[in-house]
Amino acid sequence: MEKTTRTEIASLGEFGLIDKLAKDIELKNASSVKGIGDDAAIIQPEQTQVVTTDILVEGIHFDLVYTPLKHLGYKSVIVNLSDVYAMNAIPKQILVSIAISNRFSVEAVEEIYEGIKLACRQYNVDLVGGDTTASPKGLIINVVAIGEQDKNKIVTRNTAKEGDLLCVTGDLGGAYMGLTILQREKQVFLQAPTASIELSGNDYIIARQLKPEARKDIIEFFAQQQIIPTSMIDISDGLSSEILHICKQSNVGCQLNEADVPISNFTYNKALDFGIDPINCALSGGEDYELLFTILPSDKNRVNQHPDICIIGEITDANLGVKLYTKGGNYHDIISLGWDGLKNEG
Amino acid sequence: MEKTTRTEIASLGEFGLIDKLAKDIELKNASSVKGIGDDAAIIQPEQTQVVTTDILVEGIHFDLVYTPLKHLGYKSVIVNLSDVYAMNAIPKQILVSIAISNRFSVEAVEEIYEGIKLACRQYNVDLVGGDTTASPKGLIINVVAIGEQDKNKIVTRNTAKEGDLLCVTGDLGGAYMGLTILQREKQVFLQAPTASIELSGNDYIIARQLKPEARKDIIEFFAQQQIIPTSMIDISDGLSSEILHICKQSNVGCQLNEADVPISNFTYNKALDFGIDPINCALSGGEDYELLFTILPSDKNRVNQHPDICIIGEITDANLGVKLYTKGGNYHDIISLGWDGLKNEG
Repeated sequence: MEKTTRTEIASLGEFGLIDKLAKDIELKNASSVKGIGDDAAIIQPEQTQVVTTDILVEGIHFDLVYTPLKHLGYKSVIVNLSDVYAMNAIPKQILVSIAISNRFSVEAVEEIYEGIKLACRQYNVDLVGGDTTASPKGLIINVVAIGEQDKNKIVTRNTAKEGDLLCVTGDLGGAYMGLTILQREKQVFLQAPTASIELSGNDYIIARQLKPEARKDIIEFFAQQQIIPTSMIDISDGLSSEILHICKQSNVGCQLNEADVPISNFTYNKALDFGIDPINCALSGGEDYELLFTILPSDKNRVNQHPDICIIGEITDANLGVKLYTKGGNYHDIISLGWDGLKNEG
Repeated sequence: MEKTTRTEIASLGEFGLIDKLAKDIELKNASSVKGIGDDAAIIQPEQTQVVTTDILVEGIHFDLVYTPLKHLGYKSVIVNLSDVYAMNAIPKQILVSIAISNRFSVEAVEEIYEGIKLACRQYNVDLVGGDTTASPKGLIINVVAIGEQDKNKIVTRNTAKEGDLLCVTGDLGGAYMGLTILQREKQVFLQAPTASIELSGNDYIIARQLKPEARKDIIEFFAQQQIIPTSMIDISDGLSSEILHICKQSNVGCQLNEADVPISNFTYNKALDFGIDPINCALSGGEDYELLFTILPSDKNRVNQHPDICIIGEITDANLGVKLYTKGGNYHDIISLGWDGLKNEG
C-alpha cells in the first residue's frame, strides 16, 4: 500500500511535515480568510454556521488491512461533510488532526492527505488547519467541518411534525454488506496468507464502505426546488437509529414501510447469500451516509421528481410509537441495533 | 484517582453517555445558537472567527500516572483557548472529541468532563459539540476552540516589524520544571512503589504543568488599553521555537536579551538543583501557555503598566538573524530545541 520510498516522520518533525503537507493548499471559499500556519485559522462566515467533528480510531472505525490510506483520508472528510449536509448547510472549511505512530512513514501520511485533499476538491471545501502529532500506537484522525446556510434554512432533527412524509436518499445496507465482504476476505487472508482475495464483482458495495460520498447533490436539489425539509439527519449508524433520533427529539411517532425502503438488488442478493435479512442491513447496517429527512405533504410532488429520493413512511402522533410496517402486513417496534462506537468496543 | 463506583461505558453506549455528560450544559454566549444533540452545532458569530484544534494523546502529551483526569480535561481546553487568545480573540465555543478504552469507567469520563466544564465556566466558553467513541488502547482528546474578534484586531504571527519590542507575559520554564519533578517522582515510584512521593513544596511548578491557565487577562488588558500587538503567538513549544516562528513568518530578525527573560526564583533555583541552566528551561521547556508578542515602540509605556508583561528584546532586520544576547555579553543564534510532538515520539 505504501510507496517504495520510506521517509521517517521523525526526520522531518512536526513543522517540516506540516510545511510539506500544506504547501499546495489553496483557499477557495470567500469565508476562508487565513488557513494553516498560525495559532488559529481565520474565518469570516457570510451566513449562520454549523460545526461538527468526528474522531476515527484505528481498530474501532477502520481496519488498515483492507482500507487504503487515501480512501481513509477521503472518508474521514466525507463523514463530517455528511453531517453538515444533514443540517441543509454547505460545507466551507475543515480542520484535520492526525495522531500517528512511527510505524507510518511520511509517504503514508501523504497518502492520507491525498485523500483529504481530493475530498476538499470534490466538495469545494478548504483545509484551513489542524494538528499533527505522534501516537504510541495506531492512527487517529479527527476532522472538524464548518458549513454555512441562511439561518432560516438550517434543518435540525427535532422539528418533524405529524403528517410529514419520511424520505431517504440513495439505497441502504450497501456499506454494511461491503464491510461484511471485506471482513470475510480478511479472515481468509489471515488463515491462509497465500490464498487469493476475492473482491471482484463486489465493487459497488465495497466502494460504499471504503469510499462513501456525501449527498451534496440533494442539498443543491433542495435549494433549486425551494424545498426545506422539516427535519433531517444523515445515516451513519443505521436507518433505525436515525429514525429514533428524529422521533425522540421531535416528540413524534413514525410508520416506516418496509416495502418502500430502498435496497439495491446487489445488496439484497448479497445479504441473502450471507443468510442476512436484507431489511436488517438497511435498518442496522450504518455508514451509508445517505440523508433521512421529513417533508411537508405539499412537497411530495417536488420530491418525487428526484429519482434518488424515496418516500418510506409517515410521521405520526407520538402515542402511536415508532413502527415498521412489514411486507407481511405486521407492525413491529423499531429498535436501535445500529452501530455504537462505545458498545461495540473490541 | 477514580471514585469507588465503576460503571462500564459499554453499559450506557454512546448516546447514553452523551446524554449523561450533556445534561447540565447551558449555552451562555449569544453566538452559540444550538449545542450538543444534532448532526452539528449552530453558531451565529457576531465578529470574525478564529478556529483552532489540538489533539492530546496518552503516552505522548500526558501520563496518567501523575495527571488527574479532571486536570487533563481542564488542560485540554486551556491549550486551545491559549491559541485563540494568541490571535487576540475571545473564545466562545469548544467541541470535544474523546476516544477512550474500556480500561476507563463512566466515572472516569465524568471526571474528564468536570475539568472541561470547569474550564468552560472559568473562561466563559460554551461546549457545543463533539464526539465520544471507543479506543482499542489509551485515551485521546481532541478539542476545537472557536473565538471571535473584530477583523482589524486579529493578530497573526507574520506581521512583526523591525523596531518593534518583543514582550512576554508571566514567567517561563515553570511547566518544564514541574514536568521534571513529576517524572522523577514517577521513576521513584516505579522502582519502589511503597516509597513516598515527594511533591510538596513544588506546588507552583507542578500546577504550571498540570493545570495551566490561558492569558484571558492579557487580552482584556489589550482591549482596555487599546493596544493591538503587531504580532503574537502563545508559548506551547518553548520561547526559542515561538520566536523563530514570528521571525520566519514576519521575515525579520530579533535580539532577545537573556537578562530580561522572566524566570521565577523558584523555577530558577529548581533548575540549578537539577543541573539545568535556567535560561534553557525558558527557551526550550514549553507548555507555559504564556503569550509572546511584539508591540510598536509607542506602546512601551502602556505595556509597562502591566506587572506581568516583560519587554525581552527587539525585532531587527532579517539580516541580523535571530539572536540571544547573553548576560555575559555574547550573541548566540537562537535555535529551536522546543518540544516537537513528532520528533519526541517514544
